[in-house]
Amino acid sequence: MTAPLKLGIAGLGTVGAGLVRLLTDNREHLTIALGREIVVAAVSARDRSKPRDCDLSKAVWFDDPVALAMSPDIDIFVELIGGDEGPARVAVEAALKAGRHVVTANKALLARHGVALAGLAEESHCALDFEAAVAGGIPIIKTLRESLLGNRIERIYGILNGTCNFILTKMQEESRPFGEVLAEAQRLGYAEADPTFDIGGFDAAHKLAILTSLAFGTEVAFDEIHVEGIEKITQADITAADELGYRIKLLGVALRAPSGGIEARVHPTMVPKHSAIAEVSGVTNCVAVDGDRVGTLLLVGPGAGSEATASAVASDIIDIARGGGVPPFIVPVAHLKPHRRAEIGEHQGAYYVRLSVYDKPGAMAAIAKRMGDRGVSLESIVQRRTKSALPGASGGRGAPGAPATVTLITHETTEEAIRGALEAIESDGNVSEKPQMIRIEAM
Amino acid sequence: MTAPLKLGIAGLGTVGAGLVRLLTDNREHLTIALGREIVVAAVSARDRSKPRDCDLSKAVWFDDPVALAMSPDIDIFVELIGGDEGPARVAVEAALKAGRHVVTANKALLARHGVALAGLAEESHCALDFEAAVAGGIPIIKTLRESLLGNRIERIYGILNGTCNFILTKMQEESRPFGEVLAEAQRLGYAEADPTFDIGGFDAAHKLAILTSLAFGTEVAFDEIHVEGIEKITQADITAADELGYRIKLLGVALRAPSGGIEARVHPTMVPKHSAIAEVSGVTNCVAVDGDRVGTLLLVGPGAGSEATASAVASDIIDIARGGGVPPFIVPVAHLKPHRRAEIGEHQGAYYVRLSVYDKPGAMAAIAKRMGDRGVSLESIVQRRTKSALPGASGGRGAPGAPATVTLITHETTEEAIRGALEAIESDGNVSEKPQMIRIEAM
Repeated sequence: MTAPLKLGIAGLGTVGAGLVRLLTDNREHLTIALGREIVVAAVSARDRSKPRDCDLSKAVWFDDPVALAMSPDIDIFVELIGGDEGPARVAVEAALKAGRHVVTANKALLARHGVALAGLAEESHCALDFEAAVAGGIPIIKTLRESLLGNRIERIYGILNGTCNFILTKMQEESRPFGEVLAEAQRLGYAEADPTFDIGGFDAAHKLAILTSLAFGTEVAFDEIHVEGIEKITQADITAADELGYRIKLLGVALRAPSGGIEARVHPTMVPKHSAIAEVSGVTNCVAVDGDRVGTLLLVGPGAGSEATASAVASDIIDIARGGGVPPFIVPVAHLKPHRRAEIGEHQGAYYVRLSVYDKPGAMAAIAKRMGDRGVSLESIVQRRTKSALPGASGGRGAPGAPATVTLITHETTEEAIRGALEAIESDGNVSEKPQMIRIEAM
Repeated sequence: MTAPLKLGIAGLGTVGAGLVRLLTDNREHLTIALGREIVVAAVSARDRSKPRDCDLSKAVWFDDPVALAMSPDIDIFVELIGGDEGPARVAVEAALKAGRHVVTANKALLARHGVALAGLAEESHCALDFEAAVAGGIPIIKTLRESLLGNRIERIYGILNGTCNFILTKMQEESRPFGEVLAEAQRLGYAEADPTFDIGGFDAAHKLAILTSLAFGTEVAFDEIHVEGIEKITQADITAADELGYRIKLLGVALRAPSGGIEARVHPTMVPKHSAIAEVSGVTNCVAVDGDRVGTLLLVGPGAGSEATASAVASDIIDIARGGGVPPFIVPVAHLKPHRRAEIGEHQGAYYVRLSVYDKPGAMAAIAKRMGDRGVSLESIVQRRTKSALPGASGGRGAPGAPATVTLITHETTEEAIRGALEAIESDGNVSEKPQMIRIEAM
């Protein structure tokens, strides 16, 4: 029997307490499977007196997480503090410099400083593992680092934020407006008081930055991601999507662009209604990977929650206990290529467009011409007659002159082309509000 | 740089050739990631002269796979011969006894001799890895052996046979009968000339036997699995399922039974139409795992195909190259518990029942009474009026006396109860053919 593996856990919120419970409840099984015991040797948190639903009687208390990180009495520093700067960063750096393995659930830290930290881990021959940092309980990091290593990854995409998926699912299933569902998500604790980080797409972008590096062997580059949130999605879009055979999901997508760069983007996306990803509802997350050998692999599971996250953190600890030594970003840091950004204008795909078109002669013809001028061809056009007139049809059933809603699905085109067409349409004065545009992801 | 890792590959069919191509195409990347080269040092196959689409110029040829397995010039024996006896078994045993690591895609071999082979591996301190043996390119073995080790698994289930899923998908989407779609599957190469192994559920049962052992820490016990195939599924069932909000899938399911035993079964199953698993169509496979910490994790991907299988075989080789040493069935063989079978009669769940009921007074009342006598309560009843009369209603629209189709969904009950009720209904003489019964899987 090998010597026990000693953990130092910094941060004892719900994930930290869940991890300690998991290790306590499964101690016997884990010891048999690993041939060694895992011991919570030391802990650190902001408030020592706070009651926590886990047994910490054998752990040494540290007031300072950095002192814990450097303690010679631990083998692994488990960072559950959070935040891309401050104590989390300082402590992880200190742990790696002191030769401690690091396990962290901190997506922001990795999205901002992943390569630098991987470099420190490499110098110290330490592990830096972060399964819980992306998509909670879904083992996507291990899948990329280990299972798919024989594949050239062409694209990786997924539902990476449970808050947004909860809101979009509720809007779709209960036909309720964005603001109302957001307020419910806040009441249920799925969304923060300031929800910008989630609904603005930034949380998903942190995770996508990590996945992009792993999938394509590039440096982690959070700032190179094109980010749009779900704030602009209306009930009209949800309904139109349903009629057209789609669901709207906030996806993070990264792929090898035809130009040779990496196209990485987070935005509301239409996915086919009869796809497994369309049935990923509520706070559940998913990640799909297109590999040149395996084809498409889809992993679906809880993206958050203390127990699911603790399960992922535990899997990293278990890997280290077994002696696993996979470089944080698969290849040594020196082999990580610079991230060459493919601009969003280069994006190729189909688009959903919703226009409020004034009912006046020639309006639709002008719109069609603007699309045609840019080489954008249309797969379908739906004109909603309820509450408004048919554009350009003076005999329409609605009030003459009132704008009608026109929904278009384009064939594959470029973002540059569709944006150019929509700008021209707007400046022609035939639409009463800014056109809505949602990308359709092929799958 | 560590010394190269030398492979001996036995079996050069499409998977073997795909593996050699994968290793050739990705050589540079793999060498950087692993810090060592993977070399195909030796190969063996039945016919040396057969043209193969891969570069074997540097590999030593062996006519005898057993001699290859024992060769001191290889580190890993890759068994791609197939079959649960004969050369595959002999060669794998020889390799393990000679101290070679073994990677195999052979589900039949593992389902029959998994524990004995794991024992040999343990004695020799060798790896015995088999990611490709279950669900092709889906990394379910690694997920169970590594990612979910901190979980108590409550249930594992999935679509484990692509042939059956192809047939059921086509029957559903194109409203075509079983026999016709089977013939198409045979033409397309998805089904064998003798399709019994696939459509009878035995292939799925082999895979389920392996998953059951990994999920519950029990000995591999193929013979303890209750197996039913898809031969009895008719278009009437497919249509009724659709109307009731379900899809029919051949699932392999294993769970901890209330009695304390393991309930392991392969059979056609109704799954909710609006579940991700319902959208797993064609030859695609999936596996879902319910863990006490992680909740439900669903993995979807290609269950077969030479490239996807080669991707999984490569991942095992990569793990060994990295020095990974996970026991084949997670814990040392001495700790694998005997498989205590929970009889199918103990199964608890809801049921779909389709009856051909004679149109005579009191028929439906008698059926309802038989259900009630066994404590089976009904959630829904659908009587199809087309082509036949309403049972017991002399004013029915069909031909009087002709049997009508009655479809029932029960509330949760036991298999023993529903079987008892159906036997009594049959012996009452109110039905014109044997009742159809399909289990509904809760998810």
